[in-house]
Amino acid sequence: MSQQQEIIFVTGNANKLKEVQQILKDAPCTLTNVALDLDELQGSSLEAVATAKLKQAVVQAGSGKAIFVEDTALSFTAFNGLPGAYIKWFVQSMGLAKIVQMLDAFEDKSAQAITTIAYADAEGQTHVFKGITDGTIVASRGPTDFGWDSIFEPYDSHGKTYAEMDKPSKNKISHRGKAFEAFKSFLQN
Amino acid sequence: MSQQQEIIFVTGNANKLKEVQQILKDAPCTLTNVALDLDELQGSSLEAVATAKLKQAVVQAGSGKAIFVEDTALSFTAFNGLPGAYIKWFVQSMGLAKIVQMLDAFEDKSAQAITTIAYADAEGQTHVFKGITDGTIVASRGPTDFGWDSIFEPYDSHGKTYAEMDKPSKNKISHRGKAFEAFKSFLQN
Repeated sequence: MSQQQEIIFVTGNANKLKEVQQILKDAPCTLTNVALDLDELQGSSLEAVATAKLKQAVVQAGSGKAIFVEDTALSFTAFNGLPGAYIKWFVQSMGLAKIVQMLDAFEDKSAQAITTIAYADAEGQTHVFKGITDGTIVASRGPTDFGWDSIFEPYDSHGKTYAEMDKPSKNKISHRGKAFEAFKSFLQN
Repeated sequence: MSQQQEIIFVTGNANKLKEVQQILKDAPCTLTNVALDLDELQGSSLEAVATAKLKQAVVQAGSGKAIFVEDTALSFTAFNGLPGAYIKWFVQSMGLAKIVQMLDAFEDKSAQAITTIAYADAEGQTHVFKGITDGTIVASRGPTDFGWDSIFEPYDSHGKTYAEMDKPSKNKISHRGKAFEAFKSFLQN
């Protein structure tokens, strides 16, 4: 692997890009991004959803390039894993307050935040990395400009929601941080 | 259009097939079915989800055949349209009791049952038909062997859930019945 290979992150989300640049800043690669219009499959396996997206990304970007996609899910224990990958549609359609309210009638407010990275290296080999953070769904606290960060309180955040944490502290314990740490150590080896 | 053209219904669901055969029984066509393994897209437009599925079905079945897919959604007013097309994953993962419980904290229990049919005629032209039935989400009543039929009580069912109705009565007022009536009258003209 060359010391400074270019790796393409398929995202149009400036917040995600910033987070990932921060996490990968000392990895042996140069991160660029491209916003592609990819279909997202329905499915119960997060890995299947991510690799299907990656396959399209490789076709659209052209082969011979190192490229990855990232998919994030928020899985409620009481809902047996849902909304899961569909959480983005719930945030978009219902808003955060109603998502919290859906859980009102359930005693168990625990949830898992999960990031799945699907990476195709320049030889076209696929690799999958996962990061999981356990926590609780709470009434919104902190800035609401990044998805559902203000309603998720990780168990190991000293009582803060993701939205209330500064970026470096969040990256240390977050689902995304963990998945990209695994990705980074793969790139370094 | 020939008097008895063959039309292929892409479904592996025996209950759906029986309902549709009943509804189309005097339409000028012979209904066959095939179970194809089609990807289902995530998306907020039911029409987009159905036509994407149709496109794959045409590729798999071969062109020159009249073929259709059907997609059903259950949209809660309080959830601004969700779970919508994702309802099948909720039924599968959470079960009916928990779906009803999700609405406990919301006063508005109204919902729309929506069927979208995407049909490619033998010339490859696409046509979309929709049927909508308004009703309320209720605690499960009646047989639970057909999706979410036992928790949806249409406004014009005289207090019965779909599951408590006999098939002919259900087909007269159901989302699927309405969509296929529109499809039938298209085939007859």
